[in-house]
Amino acid sequence: MGYQEVLQAARERMERLTKPPRSLGHLEEVAVRLAAIQGRLKPELGLGAVVVAAADHGVVAEGVSAYPQEVTYQMVLNFLRGGAAINQLAQAVGSRVYVLDVGVKGELPDHPGLLKRKVRPGTRNLAKEPAMTLEEAEKALEAGREAARWAVDQGATVLAAGDMGIGNTTAASALTAGLLGLSPERVVGPGTGVGEEGLRRKREAVAQALERLRPGMHSLEVAAELGGLELLAIAGVYLEGYERGLPLVLDGFPVSAGALLAFRLNPRVKDHFFAGHKSREPGHGYILEALGLKPLLDLDLALGEGTGAVLAMPLLRAAARILHMATFEEAGVSDRP
Amino acid sequence: MGYQEVLQAARERMERLTKPPRSLGHLEEVAVRLAAIQGRLKPELGLGAVVVAAADHGVVAEGVSAYPQEVTYQMVLNFLRGGAAINQLAQAVGSRVYVLDVGVKGELPDHPGLLKRKVRPGTRNLAKEPAMTLEEAEKALEAGREAARWAVDQGATVLAAGDMGIGNTTAASALTAGLLGLSPERVVGPGTGVGEEGLRRKREAVAQALERLRPGMHSLEVAAELGGLELLAIAGVYLEGYERGLPLVLDGFPVSAGALLAFRLNPRVKDHFFAGHKSREPGHGYILEALGLKPLLDLDLALGEGTGAVLAMPLLRAAARILHMATFEEAGVSDRP
Repeated sequence: MGYQEVLQAARERMERLTKPPRSLGHLEEVAVRLAAIQGRLKPELGLGAVVVAAADHGVVAEGVSAYPQEVTYQMVLNFLRGGAAINQLAQAVGSRVYVLDVGVKGELPDHPGLLKRKVRPGTRNLAKEPAMTLEEAEKALEAGREAARWAVDQGATVLAAGDMGIGNTTAASALTAGLLGLSPERVVGPGTGVGEEGLRRKREAVAQALERLRPGMHSLEVAAELGGLELLAIAGVYLEGYERGLPLVLDGFPVSAGALLAFRLNPRVKDHFFAGHKSREPGHGYILEALGLKPLLDLDLALGEGTGAVLAMPLLRAAARILHMATFEEAGVSDRP
Repeated sequence: MGYQEVLQAARERMERLTKPPRSLGHLEEVAVRLAAIQGRLKPELGLGAVVVAAADHGVVAEGVSAYPQEVTYQMVLNFLRGGAAINQLAQAVGSRVYVLDVGVKGELPDHPGLLKRKVRPGTRNLAKEPAMTLEEAEKALEAGREAARWAVDQGATVLAAGDMGIGNTTAASALTAGLLGLSPERVVGPGTGVGEEGLRRKREAVAQALERLRPGMHSLEVAAELGGLELLAIAGVYLEGYERGLPLVLDGFPVSAGALLAFRLNPRVKDHFFAGHKSREPGHGYILEALGLKPLLDLDLALGEGTGAVLAMPLLRAAARILHMATFEEAGVSDRP
C-alpha cells in the first residue's frame, strides 16, 4: 500500500478505537501520518537521532550576534563532552547525538561522535558577498546526507537535525526571506538576544544579501548566496532521512530554514515532516506556515541545537502507540448508543 | 536545605549553564522546581506511574453523558487488558498503570494491576441528593492514598492520576464550581461530546447540586455532596504522593478537579503540582488558574484516563536533565563579551 492508502486505512482504524472521537487531538493526525510513513497500520518508533550540524558565519563581522565567534568551536567541544543542552535532553528522551563539523573555524579533535566534513572554515560574509560557492553548497548538502546515513545505519528510527553556529539566525533569516520572498523586517528576530542595535545590523545585513538575488535562481543557488554551511547540511540530513523512510522532526528557526530548503529541493519530503516546537523567532512561524505544519510543543524555547525537536520525539513515539489500542469491537466496549 | 533554598540555588545554577539565558523557556522553571522537590541540585526522574481511579455516577440518570453507564466497567476491563489509550501512552513514556476501583458498578475480576476498594457501586444522583456520605468520601480518599503508596512502593518517581467514570465531567463541574464559587454556565463543557440538549441537562444537574451547599462547609463535605468517588480518590493519590515527596502531574478536567480538592485539604501539595496539558473543557482553565499552573502541552486532548499527564512525563524527565548540563566555566565556553 502507498502512503495515501495507509493514511486512509489508519484514519479509519482511528475512528474505531476505544476512546471518544478526536479525543487525542493533534496526536491522532501524527499517529496516522506515522502509519503512512512506515507503511503499516501499527507504527512503532524506537531509537531517535539528532544530527547537530555546526559551522561558522562570516557575517558575524557585522556585529549580528550576542556571543563571540569562538563559541561555535567551544560549544562543539561541549557537545562532544556531553555538557550541552542537546546532550542532556537527547539522553532523557532516548535519542543519540551525532555532531557534524561542516564549517567550524578551527581544527576539532577526532571523536567517535563527530563527523569531520569541513567544507570551509565558516562562510564568507553574506552581507558583502556570496556566503559560499555552488560547489561548496553541494558539498555541505552531501555532508548532511552522509551524517544522516550514519545515524540511520546505527539504528535511528526517527531523525532530527540540530544547529550550532554563532551568527546563524542571520543566515537563517536571509535564507527564509530569500526562499519565501519576505522582507528582512518580517523575518529577523533577536536570536540568542542581540539587543536593539544588533537587531538593526542583522536586518541591514540580510537586506544587503537579498539585493544580490535574481529572479529565477535555483533554490540551491539562493542558499549558496545566503548560507550557512550548516543550513545546507541540515537540508541534506532531511533529504536523506526522507529517502531512508524515516519520520523527520524539525527544530526551531535555523533548522526549519534548512528544512524549507530541503522542501524546495524535494517537495515530497514534507510528508515526513513534524514540527517539534514553536520558536520565539518570528521567521520560524513563516516557515511552519509555508510547510503547513503545526508545532507539537510551545514551551517558549529559543536554544537551537535540535533541543525542541528531540523534546517532541516522545510525543511521536506515544502517538505511534495510539494505533495499537483496542477497537470498540475488540474490547467489547459499547460505542455511543 | 529546604524547598526554597534548593529552588534558589537551582535558579542560580541555571543562569550559569552553557546556553543563552532563559532559552529553555518554561522547562527551566520545571527543572528548578524538580530540584526543590527532590532536594538536590541535579534532579533525576525515572519510572512514572499513573493511578487510574474508576467509579460510576448516579447523575447519569439525568442524561448527561454521550456513553451508556456500562462503559465504565467495560473500560476498566480494557485497562486491565492493555487496550486503552492510557495503557499504550504510558508504555510509550515509561510509566506504569495502576487501576483503582473505588466505585464501579459491577464486580470486577481479580487482576494484579487492579486495586479493589469499591466504596459503593457508584455515587447517588448528585442532582437529587448528596453523592455520598462524609464517611464514604473519607474511604474514597483513603483508597486513593493506598493506590499511591502501592505505586510509590513499586518504584514510581513521578506520579499522575487518571480518571474513568461515565458522567464524571458533570461531577467535576459541580466540584469545581462548588470549590471555586463559579456558576454552572462557566464550568460545564461538552465532556466526551454530549450535544446541546445534554449540555443543558448537565448545567441543570450541577445547578441543582450547588443549591445544597451551605456557607462555611468543609471542602470534604462539599466533595461528598457533589462527588464523584474517583475524584475523591484522585485527591488522595495526590495527597499521598506529596507526602512521599514525588512530583505530581495533573491531567485534564476531572483529575484536576480532584487535585483542586487535594489543594484545599493541604495547600502545600501545590509545590509538587505540574499541569500536564490544557484540556478543551472550560472548567479546566479555572482550576489551573486557581492553582497558578501553566500547562506543558496543548494538543487539544479531551480523553482523560491520565493520558495528558503521562504524555508530559518525558518533558519532566528532560527538564530534570537540564541541571546536569555543564556551566560556562566547566565547559570553557565564553559567556557574553
